[in-house]
Amino acid sequence: MKANVHTVQGRREDYGFWEERIRRSQKGKVLDTQTSGGERKLNAEFTRDTFDGSQVLELRYEAYLPMAIRCTKSICLSARSSWNLHSIAVAHRLDLVSVGHTSVFIAVSAVHRAEALDACKFLIDKIKASVPIWKNEVYVN
Amino acid sequence: MKANVHTVQGRREDYGFWEERIRRSQKGKVLDTQTSGGERKLNAEFTRDTFDGSQVLELRYEAYLPMAIRCTKSICLSARSSWNLHSIAVAHRLDLVSVGHTSVFIAVSAVHRAEALDACKFLIDKIKASVPIWKNEVYVN
Repeated sequence: MKANVHTVQGRREDYGFWEERIRRSQKGKVLDTQTSGGERKLNAEFTRDTFDGSQVLELRYEAYLPMAIRCTKSICLSARSSWNLHSIAVAHRLDLVSVGHTSVFIAVSAVHRAEALDACKFLIDKIKASVPIWKNEVYVN
Repeated sequence: MKANVHTVQGRREDYGFWEERIRRSQKGKVLDTQTSGGERKLNAEFTRDTFDGSQVLELRYEAYLPMAIRCTKSICLSARSSWNLHSIAVAHRLDLVSVGHTSVFIAVSAVHRAEALDACKFLIDKIKASVPIWKNEVYVN
């Protein structure tokens, strides 16, 4: 596990790249539950099971970590410029991910739920589009 | 726990109203991880810690269950008319919810991640606005 914790104007940001299953206890560590300021918190997990009708047996993620971390940091800063967010946490699995296990975990806290949801959508879209993480899919057939 | 499992054109829908903490194992039961058809799945948890700057000690939810279930079912059907969704699960806590625990859990699976995210936003907004669930907040001071 490689995690990076930053503080941006007193607000917390974590970026993690995990080589093992993201467990409940680790998610708790990723984003502090003790926040303040009238916040809603959204925890979102993304998994995928199949692709174009073929059943996926496993996924394997590879990343160029130094750039993946810089890129994720830049995406988080960009999210902050669009929404009033408190804490952001991003955890992306690396290496082998079994079917049904979480590949990306994002947590965002904000005063307004709509901000947390819109920021979460922005974060997952930008991460998928621009962070140097490569995915190999192994199919049943 | 009161859960209702429906099948809508071969697609699964669960609505649950829990009087105890929503645990990991229960979430797994709420939405089958064995889906098919090239899907992404989004699991979203909503919690809240404070309100208008005052620290919340606990939240207490009350519901008129027969109408809450009908209303949730109608919201899910409405989501299906706007997005191409596979499974939908909604679990709302009732009774006492401690700070930092999940009050609403929503899971949506769809072929496109954007559909799952947009549907999730629609579901939480509509549930908060129109399902007969009343919230009492107990503050530290």
